[in-house]
Amino acid sequence: MAKEKKLVEAITSMDVDFAQWYTDVVKKAELTDYSSVKGCMVIKPAGFAIWENIQAELDRRFKETGVENVYMPMFIPESLLQKEKDHVEGFAPEVAWVTHGGLEPLQERMCVRPTSETLFCDFYAKDVQSYRDLPKNYNQWCSVVRWEKTTRPFLRSREFLWQEGHTAHATEEEAEERTQLMLNVYADFCEEVLAIPVVRGQKTDKEKFAGAKSTFTIEAMMHDGKALQSGTSHNFGDGFARAFNIQYLDRDNKLKFIHQTSWGLSTRVIGALIMVHGDDSGLVLPPRIAPVQAVIVPVQQNKEGVLGKAFELKERLSGFKVKVDDTDKSPGWKFSESEMRGIPVRIEIGPRDIAQNQAVLVRRDTHEKITVSLDGIEEQLRGLLDTIQSDMFARAKGHMESHTYAALNMEELKDTADHKPGFIKAMWCGSQECEEKLKEDVGITSRCMPFVQEHLSDTCVCCGRPAAKMVYWGKAY
Amino acid sequence: MAKEKKLVEAITSMDVDFAQWYTDVVKKAELTDYSSVKGCMVIKPAGFAIWENIQAELDRRFKETGVENVYMPMFIPESLLQKEKDHVEGFAPEVAWVTHGGLEPLQERMCVRPTSETLFCDFYAKDVQSYRDLPKNYNQWCSVVRWEKTTRPFLRSREFLWQEGHTAHATEEEAEERTQLMLNVYADFCEEVLAIPVVRGQKTDKEKFAGAKSTFTIEAMMHDGKALQSGTSHNFGDGFARAFNIQYLDRDNKLKFIHQTSWGLSTRVIGALIMVHGDDSGLVLPPRIAPVQAVIVPVQQNKEGVLGKAFELKERLSGFKVKVDDTDKSPGWKFSESEMRGIPVRIEIGPRDIAQNQAVLVRRDTHEKITVSLDGIEEQLRGLLDTIQSDMFARAKGHMESHTYAALNMEELKDTADHKPGFIKAMWCGSQECEEKLKEDVGITSRCMPFVQEHLSDTCVCCGRPAAKMVYWGKAY
Repeated sequence: MAKEKKLVEAITSMDVDFAQWYTDVVKKAELTDYSSVKGCMVIKPAGFAIWENIQAELDRRFKETGVENVYMPMFIPESLLQKEKDHVEGFAPEVAWVTHGGLEPLQERMCVRPTSETLFCDFYAKDVQSYRDLPKNYNQWCSVVRWEKTTRPFLRSREFLWQEGHTAHATEEEAEERTQLMLNVYADFCEEVLAIPVVRGQKTDKEKFAGAKSTFTIEAMMHDGKALQSGTSHNFGDGFARAFNIQYLDRDNKLKFIHQTSWGLSTRVIGALIMVHGDDSGLVLPPRIAPVQAVIVPVQQNKEGVLGKAFELKERLSGFKVKVDDTDKSPGWKFSESEMRGIPVRIEIGPRDIAQNQAVLVRRDTHEKITVSLDGIEEQLRGLLDTIQSDMFARAKGHMESHTYAALNMEELKDTADHKPGFIKAMWCGSQECEEKLKEDVGITSRCMPFVQEHLSDTCVCCGRPAAKMVYWGKAY
Repeated sequence: MAKEKKLVEAITSMDVDFAQWYTDVVKKAELTDYSSVKGCMVIKPAGFAIWENIQAELDRRFKETGVENVYMPMFIPESLLQKEKDHVEGFAPEVAWVTHGGLEPLQERMCVRPTSETLFCDFYAKDVQSYRDLPKNYNQWCSVVRWEKTTRPFLRSREFLWQEGHTAHATEEEAEERTQLMLNVYADFCEEVLAIPVVRGQKTDKEKFAGAKSTFTIEAMMHDGKALQSGTSHNFGDGFARAFNIQYLDRDNKLKFIHQTSWGLSTRVIGALIMVHGDDSGLVLPPRIAPVQAVIVPVQQNKEGVLGKAFELKERLSGFKVKVDDTDKSPGWKFSESEMRGIPVRIEIGPRDIAQNQAVLVRRDTHEKITVSLDGIEEQLRGLLDTIQSDMFARAKGHMESHTYAALNMEELKDTADHKPGFIKAMWCGSQECEEKLKEDVGITSRCMPFVQEHLSDTCVCCGRPAAKMVYWGKAY
């Protein structure tokens, strides 16, 4: 047991130090590693396999809505970045600049894309001529660079992987529809696949994307009660089209500006996966996103027939993502390791099980052990994986709901913010002034104005003027 | 017919100007477009869909050999790039340098990766401790940057997409085995999926990768007789391991250097696809890589029942990648467009066909028309796609074979190089001197020393000294 203990002890308890627990899990589950490039991470096989599953599932959902994938250059000439005023102000301070190509200085420096609105605009300006060329529903999977000062694996790093969709439409209505459609694709994906419940809503003007008319967001609650913005969808109206002069000839023979959207989801959601579902034994992955859904651990694997039976079982379970751990580590070590990596189900099988034509299924999420007959094990496993998936979602939803509080006045708001980690629902007048006051005095920011509004009172929690919106407030990653 | 003619006429004939034909096809088939970033391309949906299919098929083949995907940072600090002498000499002159992060100059400048050997070495130096940590069979899909002076879509651009595999092994033998294994994965993929026959062989020392002990290559012949290096696999021996001090503790308790390989295949192969199979009507895609395998073109689509039947047919052919072209363009325009895009089969269906319970299948590769009964159309289409795939490979192989010549002396060599586009087989003494002479005097370079050697004569075609190897020579992209 010494070895097993060592593996487990290496993790800080989440109640003792949540930030350290996070760092420990990322490291021990072998998701990422630090690199010699400051602020950038190496994504290791166990981490990248999760991202591959996210990509496959999201990409399929995108394509069902008519999205096509493309690839734009990774560089943006400085003059191009500067064409939209709000946009350049938002991003210029945090980009990486390329100044030399080979041995020679560039005539114009270029930044590595922090996001690609300007490149897509540049492309649409040439490629869109007529109403027949619309809509363009383009997306790309790539990495982007933002020169952050403080970084944490998945949550904030100087380079990260994401997808960015950029669409062009003939009308305002169509752009608004696409903006909301993609937000719902993200929300459904998070809830159905990642088992992460989210609040869907609109960002306030203060929190919206640089250059956007409106930004929609999905906000998830981590185990420590903090919010993580997990995906955003922006409606640009015709702002970028005017800055880049992107016009099309409409059916009525008039030149009109296009309307645009963009939407992105990044490797950040892996951070959410960890912080929503993880526990003191490590990562806990929902079955629908887990690269390995079940690990078969042979017990007394040196006894005749045990390893053979384990691989026979793997064959029978070929409809699932199953691995046999036949390394020469002890079963206890293997148990701890599979828990650390968050594999949803462990299947233990030893000589006594074989004699009784059975195996033991162990749930990662509850540690519950279930002895099942080998005869019906496919169906048992299928049912168990479904149960784990829905239980994990229900548990996370319960956590979010029980950590969401309403505040009717500043006293309640401060008290909640100071003592109860979670979301705070409160009425807001709509002024940036109150938002800033709440940030400074209470340390919370507006997460979103949820689509599902509640009427808590008539007045702004901060200034007492008439309320315009009910807002979710919180501390955020 | 005016419109159709216009579309077709816009393409230069390949016999008139092959380079212009290539540029025309890339543009008219909407594979790429130029961007405001000099030397970088925009890959449009039709081009990117081909790359996605290449990725999916290759990735599956990689994983079958135990490869795992990871992601390394896109930046390389200058000091890291400089650790392996040959490598830095090969790449430093053509990298893009990042000198500023946000508003501040970097303490050490970094290049955007031209290839990632140094990053993987840096990672392995930390991550590999014991023989238990080996092998590492890692791969990443990403883009790389090389500051080329002259660029052409897919063939040579300042940024391109590729995969780069980087493996670490305990022994020299295992590294050599992996190097050859991956070359064969590339070769089989090209032949079986892209229908592109390749010559498999080893590069001469002059042509090998910067830092490699040996480089293996697959060389394909384009329609104009020029060679295109389509994938390479490198054995580094322990050279990088010594430069980066990557050692592991072996079973015998001794510290030993690891042995490494790397192997890459890029969007360049899309250039090969175009130049091997294309014709004067545009692109011709092999069915196994085509994003759309068959397009249904309704004839007289305004007549009652025609469009309905077309979509009904699409449903029945759901086992294939099929689209209905129901735009308001004329059938002739649709025919030309589907040919330009290289869709393997066109299915024409009009009122007369419907009355006779039939449709017309038109092969893209031969323009042959086949009238088939709707009853057995799935099987007919399946058979036809298989036939097209194997015919395309056979045709390309025939072309390569009939354009491969043997030369026994300099006179024959010069005469062939001057008048017969293609590969030239000739004996070689092994000296770099002769290689350079052939490049300067005849304008050809060594493509590879093929694995399948032939004994053409005892002496070097250039200097008359004893021959060491039979080499494929040619002009290359």
